[in-house]
Amino acid sequence: MIVELISVGTEILLGNIVNTNANYLSQACAMLGMSLYYQVVVGDNPGRLLDTIKTALSRSDIIILTGGLGPTQDDLTKETTARAIGRSLCMDERSKHRILEYFNTIYKSGTYGSSDNEAGINDAVTAAYARITDNNWKQAMTIEGSLVLDNDNGTAPGYIVEDKGKLIILLPGPPNEMKPMFEAHVLPHLKKLTDRTFVSRMVKICGIGESRAETMILDLIEQQDNPTIAPYAKTGEVHIRITASAHDEEEANRLLQPVLDKLTERFGDNIYTLDEKETLESVVIKLLANRGLNLSVAESCTGGLLASRIVSIPGASMVFNTGFVTYSNEAKRKNLGVKEKTLGKYGAVSSQTVREMAEGACLATGSSVSAAITGIAGPGGGTAEKPVGLVYIACRVNGETTVRELHLKGSRDKIREQSVIYTLDLIRRCLLASDS
Amino acid sequence: MIVELISVGTEILLGNIVNTNANYLSQACAMLGMSLYYQVVVGDNPGRLLDTIKTALSRSDIIILTGGLGPTQDDLTKETTARAIGRSLCMDERSKHRILEYFNTIYKSGTYGSSDNEAGINDAVTAAYARITDNNWKQAMTIEGSLVLDNDNGTAPGYIVEDKGKLIILLPGPPNEMKPMFEAHVLPHLKKLTDRTFVSRMVKICGIGESRAETMILDLIEQQDNPTIAPYAKTGEVHIRITASAHDEEEANRLLQPVLDKLTERFGDNIYTLDEKETLESVVIKLLANRGLNLSVAESCTGGLLASRIVSIPGASMVFNTGFVTYSNEAKRKNLGVKEKTLGKYGAVSSQTVREMAEGACLATGSSVSAAITGIAGPGGGTAEKPVGLVYIACRVNGETTVRELHLKGSRDKIREQSVIYTLDLIRRCLLASDS
Repeated sequence: MIVELISVGTEILLGNIVNTNANYLSQACAMLGMSLYYQVVVGDNPGRLLDTIKTALSRSDIIILTGGLGPTQDDLTKETTARAIGRSLCMDERSKHRILEYFNTIYKSGTYGSSDNEAGINDAVTAAYARITDNNWKQAMTIEGSLVLDNDNGTAPGYIVEDKGKLIILLPGPPNEMKPMFEAHVLPHLKKLTDRTFVSRMVKICGIGESRAETMILDLIEQQDNPTIAPYAKTGEVHIRITASAHDEEEANRLLQPVLDKLTERFGDNIYTLDEKETLESVVIKLLANRGLNLSVAESCTGGLLASRIVSIPGASMVFNTGFVTYSNEAKRKNLGVKEKTLGKYGAVSSQTVREMAEGACLATGSSVSAAITGIAGPGGGTAEKPVGLVYIACRVNGETTVRELHLKGSRDKIREQSVIYTLDLIRRCLLASDS
Repeated sequence: MIVELISVGTEILLGNIVNTNANYLSQACAMLGMSLYYQVVVGDNPGRLLDTIKTALSRSDIIILTGGLGPTQDDLTKETTARAIGRSLCMDERSKHRILEYFNTIYKSGTYGSSDNEAGINDAVTAAYARITDNNWKQAMTIEGSLVLDNDNGTAPGYIVEDKGKLIILLPGPPNEMKPMFEAHVLPHLKKLTDRTFVSRMVKICGIGESRAETMILDLIEQQDNPTIAPYAKTGEVHIRITASAHDEEEANRLLQPVLDKLTERFGDNIYTLDEKETLESVVIKLLANRGLNLSVAESCTGGLLASRIVSIPGASMVFNTGFVTYSNEAKRKNLGVKEKTLGKYGAVSSQTVREMAEGACLATGSSVSAAITGIAGPGGGTAEKPVGLVYIACRVNGETTVRELHLKGSRDKIREQSVIYTLDLIRRCLLASDS
């Protein structure tokens, strides 16, 4: 089954927005085992859009269009698709009713606060309501003989049209409308078209570089057939997706297991989760919660990024106590009790200072676990002895402190981000080690 | 001049990477006043790639291809382009020399640290050196009659080929190689093709919603011709790009000025900068530095995000003192001296608590400026009285504290991000107000 994506929107061609829809839908097609040969972006121009749809119909089985379903005159996707397959548009009463309901809901919930900063939101609501002009009913027009897909997050419905053995799917452009609609209505429809079931697992690895990780499974990648094995590099992490295609879920799981076993054997405790939904920070929070421990952190160059990653997980309050952003030497002394002598003799970026930061964080808060980061994130501040990218991290668990020296590459942001990931991984390893 | 972008790479079609190259090049074309009608993504397949190049040659004047210039057999862009225009490939001695040099440099700089976490990088270097196999010399082959573009960040050169009045530009796929090459070699070349000069200014606005901002300049947007006016919405901010096309820079600036004046008049102190490179946090840092003030922050639901945004700016150490991430009530009492009575009577999310947090941050650190955030970021934790999205922010400047109540919408991350932006804006406004 060959799929083609057509993203409609002049704003993509002008570079105003990144085409994340194409990325999302490409991943979905890969998961379904469907072949995607082309992604095309075309503007809101009737002639070029018509050409693009006709070309797609001539070479692909399923065409997914996003964008151009809105209320303005520029929105032409529905009209042009109808023209490409020689169908007409007709009013869909259910869509009309839903559009009215949607505006009512927005209007009613428009009881926003009185802060100055929120004036814009109130205005947006009022403006939205005032905009239920005739234009909006354009969105209730459907392509003759198509299946209408409800939009729970906006006004423009989606459509599935079958024509001469081809499937044309029209979805709204805003990702927060497109994605829920795709998952609720399109995915089940596409799954029915294939007699195969696809089951996918994600192996998430930390503490091993991408190149080394790939070398370690090169034989598996080269031999891959079913399941397929695809490594994805992320900053400081490597994720490996394994996807099996089978007649049912049981068979797929049977195919996945030997590959999962091999990966577990090769990567050992570098694997921090086999659960797609878990992140390094959520794993750390679980490890802390299961042991009834609580964590405080002390950060210099990362300036709150570590604390922020931990607090980004709902429920972090169970295990997170206090974060100190001690950027200056004075702040390190005052809040964490780092010794003047240590700072003077070894400097703020040293294994001695990071150790005292971690110890001080436990002492100041009563936490049994702490982590600390100090380093030179650049672009300035580096010397021959202590170059940009030199970062010390520490983790203290139940009175024992582990320190690591890192030599990182990249921009200031990249160095800060890597520092945080390596520190999360260090906390994870120290917690696991403390069990034995 | 009509431009078409062709991104070559199966990894984009599989959804493994987001096509940010297309976004970058689209913006560049818009800036140059060139019309981009199509973006196409095609895999590393010789037949489909050839079709795509031929179609582009039939409808566009300039074709920019990215990706598929690497050393592996899958990399086909150069070979296929040569075939499409009936040219052959020949060895370019200069490229060959540069590739050898590149590997030597990587090898020599491979003196990385001994930390466990860095093992991957050492491996990558060794592996890279071991990889100077015959494959790599494939990258030194050039399309007959083309201009070779040096790659300072990788091994694959780029190319500019003229053929029957069309311009074909081949660039490497990795953004960190493509962008510097585009800026150094392609941009000057394209600028020569147009007799127009394009000058662009960015007006950055905070404290006004997107919809309201757009309504306030609807007349200007509708009348726009030269300069063009394009608003971009960002979380909590609105950016308006104004671009003038003229014969020279002076004329362009003359065209820009009246529009800039109108925007300044309408948005007043909601404009935080007219400098494209400035961000809200860099403006805040400058305001503090110019006044010789230093800042400490206290965060609850944002968990270090505010501190982290400030520290992300190089040189933040001049003005940033200490950040406290006081997620628990105990931490708020202990580090900031928030009164037990206040927390008991009004709760952790209240105007009273945020005020005491800001006051406590100044007191604990001796900073003359502080900011504080406490709120309910969700998804859990909301009540009828204090719903998810209720956030209190405060700023204290020279003994005077200003508090704002926010009612925000969206996911946990979105609420946290908006809280940080509104707080940065509040610091900015309080600093400006303190002058008068």
